[in-house]
Amino acid sequence: MLATIIHAPGDIRVEDLPQPTILNPSDAVVRVVAACVCGSDLWPYRGVKPTKEAHGIGHELVSVVEEIGADVQTVKPGDFVISPFAISDGTCVNCKNCWTQACEHGTGFGGDDGFGLPVTGAQSQFVRMPYADGTLIATPEMPSDDLIPHLLTLADVMCTGHHAAVSAEVGPGKTVVVVGDGAVGLSGVLAAARLGAGRIIIMSRHEDRQKLAVEFGATDVVAERGEGGIAKIKELLGGLADCALECVGTKESMDQALHVLRPGGHLGYVGVPVGESALPLRYLFETNIHVAGGIAPAHTYIPELLPEVLNGTIKPGKVFDLEPPLSEAAEAYKAMDERRAIKVLLRP
Amino acid sequence: MLATIIHAPGDIRVEDLPQPTILNPSDAVVRVVAACVCGSDLWPYRGVKPTKEAHGIGHELVSVVEEIGADVQTVKPGDFVISPFAISDGTCVNCKNCWTQACEHGTGFGGDDGFGLPVTGAQSQFVRMPYADGTLIATPEMPSDDLIPHLLTLADVMCTGHHAAVSAEVGPGKTVVVVGDGAVGLSGVLAAARLGAGRIIIMSRHEDRQKLAVEFGATDVVAERGEGGIAKIKELLGGLADCALECVGTKESMDQALHVLRPGGHLGYVGVPVGESALPLRYLFETNIHVAGGIAPAHTYIPELLPEVLNGTIKPGKVFDLEPPLSEAAEAYKAMDERRAIKVLLRP
Repeated sequence: MLATIIHAPGDIRVEDLPQPTILNPSDAVVRVVAACVCGSDLWPYRGVKPTKEAHGIGHELVSVVEEIGADVQTVKPGDFVISPFAISDGTCVNCKNCWTQACEHGTGFGGDDGFGLPVTGAQSQFVRMPYADGTLIATPEMPSDDLIPHLLTLADVMCTGHHAAVSAEVGPGKTVVVVGDGAVGLSGVLAAARLGAGRIIIMSRHEDRQKLAVEFGATDVVAERGEGGIAKIKELLGGLADCALECVGTKESMDQALHVLRPGGHLGYVGVPVGESALPLRYLFETNIHVAGGIAPAHTYIPELLPEVLNGTIKPGKVFDLEPPLSEAAEAYKAMDERRAIKVLLRP
Repeated sequence: MLATIIHAPGDIRVEDLPQPTILNPSDAVVRVVAACVCGSDLWPYRGVKPTKEAHGIGHELVSVVEEIGADVQTVKPGDFVISPFAISDGTCVNCKNCWTQACEHGTGFGGDDGFGLPVTGAQSQFVRMPYADGTLIATPEMPSDDLIPHLLTLADVMCTGHHAAVSAEVGPGKTVVVVGDGAVGLSGVLAAARLGAGRIIIMSRHEDRQKLAVEFGATDVVAERGEGGIAKIKELLGGLADCALECVGTKESMDQALHVLRPGGHLGYVGVPVGESALPLRYLFETNIHVAGGIAPAHTYIPELLPEVLNGTIKPGKVFDLEPPLSEAAEAYKAMDERRAIKVLLRP
């Protein structure tokens, strides 16, 4: 089968590997219907995050169950399934607290499963899925092909944008600033609109992303950054914002998000922090800004978002603007790295 | 009148100053019934925070209105009033959002009022109170003398402990760890108990403070710190805590509070941060720990807490264990600095 392997920064190869098989009774093996490239996959691609040895990459997929282990009860061969980017057992204290991304036995894709057994990267034709019962969520029926991109966003970006909005306590009538116009930021706009925000400002300099943001529910676009961006937001809102969604992960984007918030405002951050990031405690102390976010508990959010994707109420898959075959994964990374694509969907 | 002045680290003097008068039509002049020394007053006393020039000190007082300016409508001479440690106009956007500590025209005690006019420190016999309508809260009638210490805590510590508990989202059945056994930490215990916490662990090494914590509702005392403290808490709770209250302000206490929390747990912090403090963003990102807190909007909380103080349901004034006359303020600072007293009440 074809699988995408990262060897070193900038070195993505699609290789022919043996098809995975059931190794534990709680496993499923799934056939990938669509996978995609995440903004966070660009960190090792760019060398910002080191790649010690070659490994499978990708953590977003939708698939059809091929085979299940003896203990699997909630999915069966032939089911169309969504798997969040984090594998979770569904039974530990953190899973029961709904923080599935912090599962005590959880793992990711492209590494090992905690038993020393390999888990394929999601940008592959087949994947062994540990803890199938705790991880996979089946759709009621086989979805039509046009729904695939929208369903695929539930594996990560839509749930992550939703996590930013929920963490920022977005609600009816609130004023919201979204920092970051990548797929997660755009999903954050859609999530904020869905939660009833009164005003949604996207900070973006890219015309195609601005356009999609407006389609997703942004009421205003601010191209300025730094002090200029803050001034523009103050002008638009007649003051500072109730909520800010940080969807990038750099110090600059975090500073931007913190400084558009009013005293007592809420920051929801989901950008993977680059380097040794820190939050300015004294500033938070003086402003009473609330800070929440992190890795999204996607498994927890999928049951809420899935029906709206299936009935077409939300169309988060519009973030995909390039759909090459899996064999062209190297080019897909290049396109995202060079910002020629917002997000790339790979069809095996 | 007598007023307490800080000249330099360790140099507290009670001096005879002219009695303040009405300077603005929104002012009141109040006669101080009781004032107290705050843990944060020890920062300049210890030289951790610089004292550029001599100024009045203290920001906690209960008082009786002597005189009001022409515009004052909500209090009248003879009223017993509580004033939070932060002066607020009650009309700006932040006050209307309930974040009175961030009032756009707000100020503190012992500095100037934003119009270049001096505000006396609260450890004085009389104080000019700017924005009397926005700042002062009158009791329905003149309270009995035994209520004075309890009412005085509403100026700061009880509201600050309550802010820690509210920021940590303490609620029925939650498990709570309180880091800091000073007056604020102890108030945090009382606040957590009042909000229905199921388990309250105070981290304390001082027998008198442990005893008061238990009286306030702590269910467990942990004397160990660092890794040992975390291990002990895990043993007591069978895991990590839902909520942590950081009531000190040092890096060590913040680390302690963050590391006793479960994934998705809530930190409420009210310790004034010492130095250039920062929060570890990557740790927060990986754990989804929520962070909220800062300077308490005491004015917002007083209406909720006052009735319970007046009817004796809560007795937060038990944190006072030394009651010298105002003239002995220098000795009061010394006693708190040397931890001979939890909190000192000064009677003018």
